[in-house]
Amino acid sequence: MDRQSLKTRIHTWLAENRESLTTFLQHVVQADSTQGNEKQAQQIVAERLHEMGLDVDVWEPDGNELKKHPYFYSPREQFSGSPNVVGVWKGSGGGRSIILNGHIDVVPAGDREQWEDDPFSGKIEDGKMYGRGATDMKGGNVALLAAVQCLRELGVSLKGDVIFQSVIEEESGGSGTLAAVLRGYKADAALIPEPTGMKIFPKQQGSMWFRITVKGRSAHGGTRYQGVSAIEKALQISEAIRKLEKERNDRIDDPLYDGIPIPIPINIGKIQGGDWPSSVPDLVVLEGRMGVAPEEKMEDARAELARCLEQAAEQDAWMKEHPPRLEWFGARWVPGSIDLEHAFMNVLTESYRDVMQADPVVEASPWGTDGGLLTQAGSTPSVVFGPGVTSMAHFPNEYIELDRVFECAEVVANTLIKWCGLED
Amino acid sequence: MDRQSLKTRIHTWLAENRESLTTFLQHVVQADSTQGNEKQAQQIVAERLHEMGLDVDVWEPDGNELKKHPYFYSPREQFSGSPNVVGVWKGSGGGRSIILNGHIDVVPAGDREQWEDDPFSGKIEDGKMYGRGATDMKGGNVALLAAVQCLRELGVSLKGDVIFQSVIEEESGGSGTLAAVLRGYKADAALIPEPTGMKIFPKQQGSMWFRITVKGRSAHGGTRYQGVSAIEKALQISEAIRKLEKERNDRIDDPLYDGIPIPIPINIGKIQGGDWPSSVPDLVVLEGRMGVAPEEKMEDARAELARCLEQAAEQDAWMKEHPPRLEWFGARWVPGSIDLEHAFMNVLTESYRDVMQADPVVEASPWGTDGGLLTQAGSTPSVVFGPGVTSMAHFPNEYIELDRVFECAEVVANTLIKWCGLED
Repeated sequence: MDRQSLKTRIHTWLAENRESLTTFLQHVVQADSTQGNEKQAQQIVAERLHEMGLDVDVWEPDGNELKKHPYFYSPREQFSGSPNVVGVWKGSGGGRSIILNGHIDVVPAGDREQWEDDPFSGKIEDGKMYGRGATDMKGGNVALLAAVQCLRELGVSLKGDVIFQSVIEEESGGSGTLAAVLRGYKADAALIPEPTGMKIFPKQQGSMWFRITVKGRSAHGGTRYQGVSAIEKALQISEAIRKLEKERNDRIDDPLYDGIPIPIPINIGKIQGGDWPSSVPDLVVLEGRMGVAPEEKMEDARAELARCLEQAAEQDAWMKEHPPRLEWFGARWVPGSIDLEHAFMNVLTESYRDVMQADPVVEASPWGTDGGLLTQAGSTPSVVFGPGVTSMAHFPNEYIELDRVFECAEVVANTLIKWCGLED
Repeated sequence: MDRQSLKTRIHTWLAENRESLTTFLQHVVQADSTQGNEKQAQQIVAERLHEMGLDVDVWEPDGNELKKHPYFYSPREQFSGSPNVVGVWKGSGGGRSIILNGHIDVVPAGDREQWEDDPFSGKIEDGKMYGRGATDMKGGNVALLAAVQCLRELGVSLKGDVIFQSVIEEESGGSGTLAAVLRGYKADAALIPEPTGMKIFPKQQGSMWFRITVKGRSAHGGTRYQGVSAIEKALQISEAIRKLEKERNDRIDDPLYDGIPIPIPINIGKIQGGDWPSSVPDLVVLEGRMGVAPEEKMEDARAELARCLEQAAEQDAWMKEHPPRLEWFGARWVPGSIDLEHAFMNVLTESYRDVMQADPVVEASPWGTDGGLLTQAGSTPSVVFGPGVTSMAHFPNEYIELDRVFECAEVVANTLIKWCGLED
């Protein structure tokens, strides 16, 4: 079977199997896999891997082991009922191996009233499938699965191993992928189909969550001039953070971030303070997410925010005496990057061109992914490329365009052949 | 008994009974009487009124009746477990009656870490008693009680009625005083011992609570530029309110407000928004208190804030399409004022001079009191005069100076004699 005819057969197979693969994606989307509820969706995935003849490994990560690892973060330490699933297609030898890593967990549906349908409807309309997780990232996962299934059913034999991973916990700090790394799964490269809108992200932004506690002094609202409003101080802090964000982003000269308005944003996502309308509020808590540049060290970014708060406090008589308190809590995503000249980048880019008849857009990711962990804990250089779109991730009425899923599957199938090598 | 010797005997009685009255105040302060928890403190007061031989009326206001009244405002409509207490000392006839009105409810203690002792410790140190409500206004209530007890124990007989009221809900809109008005308690004048720092406040600022809901648009924090932060919009609103406050206060030329930095403040007391550190917050709610000038109409003040928000929204592309929503909710204190030449003002001022050997400071109140309701719903002209200090009200480590409590008691005892008239 020559490469050219195989390329055609892949295209044809995906077209012919589009309906059944779409139904399969629908089942996966319909299975609510918010944190703690991943089991049903994972069973669907594991069953399909079995049917495809892969060696399937299903296990519940051991929180006691995981929590010893410096990169562990999760709001929980107990994963019973939340299995990881890995399917291994062993190559014949002599080829390069690949990890195909997608997370099965989805963020909560949020305010149901903002959804036109049930958040887990899987409804298909105008070529789009709707549901929480459709774009982030079940559409991507099924694109990977479709690529593998296609090659299996076409009777292709590869030299390198293909390791398909359906992991938990990506949305809460990556302990699913960390567990897979600690179980020994490593490869020569990894592909993560997070919603890049078919762009290729060789560099992945890290991120971490912070909490800032700002003090004021209470007083009766009628004599508010005798108190110090923690809300007003929090506003000053918020402005200082906005300036720091600008400084940090002005420094970014990586061409991969060209055209991205704020490459590494600092987002204040939550504010809470005061407990009585007619009292001057004496405490405000801000919570947010700080982006970390792909080649930046987490600790350097942390130190920079700490310094920013110190400087803001220095300029204010009250905060000088009552400095805001900074904590790092909750989720954390390690940044990652692959050399732009890495062989896997070439293979993926070529495959994209072959299938899409256009040059891919190569950018840096606006968010953290499990790619940081794969790179830094698993020594597996990682690239992010997927069919979903960032603007739909975590949104009400999340959807995935089905055409993109199948285009992605086709690019990935061709990538596997070139990367892992075809056994003649 | 001539007036001069009675004046001396009042002074002596208060000095001799200072210790037991201080202990009584301590018990009242130690009884946490935040909203919904007033019962224990009210029982202590009612018991003392019984001991003094007054006709005691204890009742739980009927929310169903109250809520029909146009001046009713409370976050609740159910007052079971939260009784009002009134003690009536019936005069012999032919004299002017007086209402002595103090609220038993206290605002929440707030951040406990800012308190050196338990917020309900009642600790005495350096002539000060500490505790939430000590200054606002249990110290004042007990000063009134001490004045009445003093006259009773000295065997004084008055011509006019003395109606002592220990009411709930002042901190939440005055439904305790409204209930007392509706129960039929009216008088020729009222004295309210809110913390004026021994100043006399013939004009009482009104106030009302507002809630502003600011919308944003959610997005992933890593692409925050695709969303609209409701926190940032709330900051703009906060700045617009600061400007409005300045405009409104620049207009105040009443000499009673001379020396008060911000006569009618607008306080933002509470902020809450966003629900995930790495999402752009799509909703922020601000709650606050707007001061209303003594002669201003509540509806004019309301219209002014509404206009301010409209103008702020006009200047912002997002808010123009998604204007902030303004609601008036919860507490509301009607402004009130008594004629500076009213006979009760003369009596109180004279008594002050007699006792304190100095002219009283006459100012306008920086906050709303139940005096507005007494005046406007109860046709009872009201003056505010008390031993606490505004700067301690709603503060951590709130305290009252005990010397002021007894000075106030002495001024009030002499006021009662002159106002109600001594039966020969």
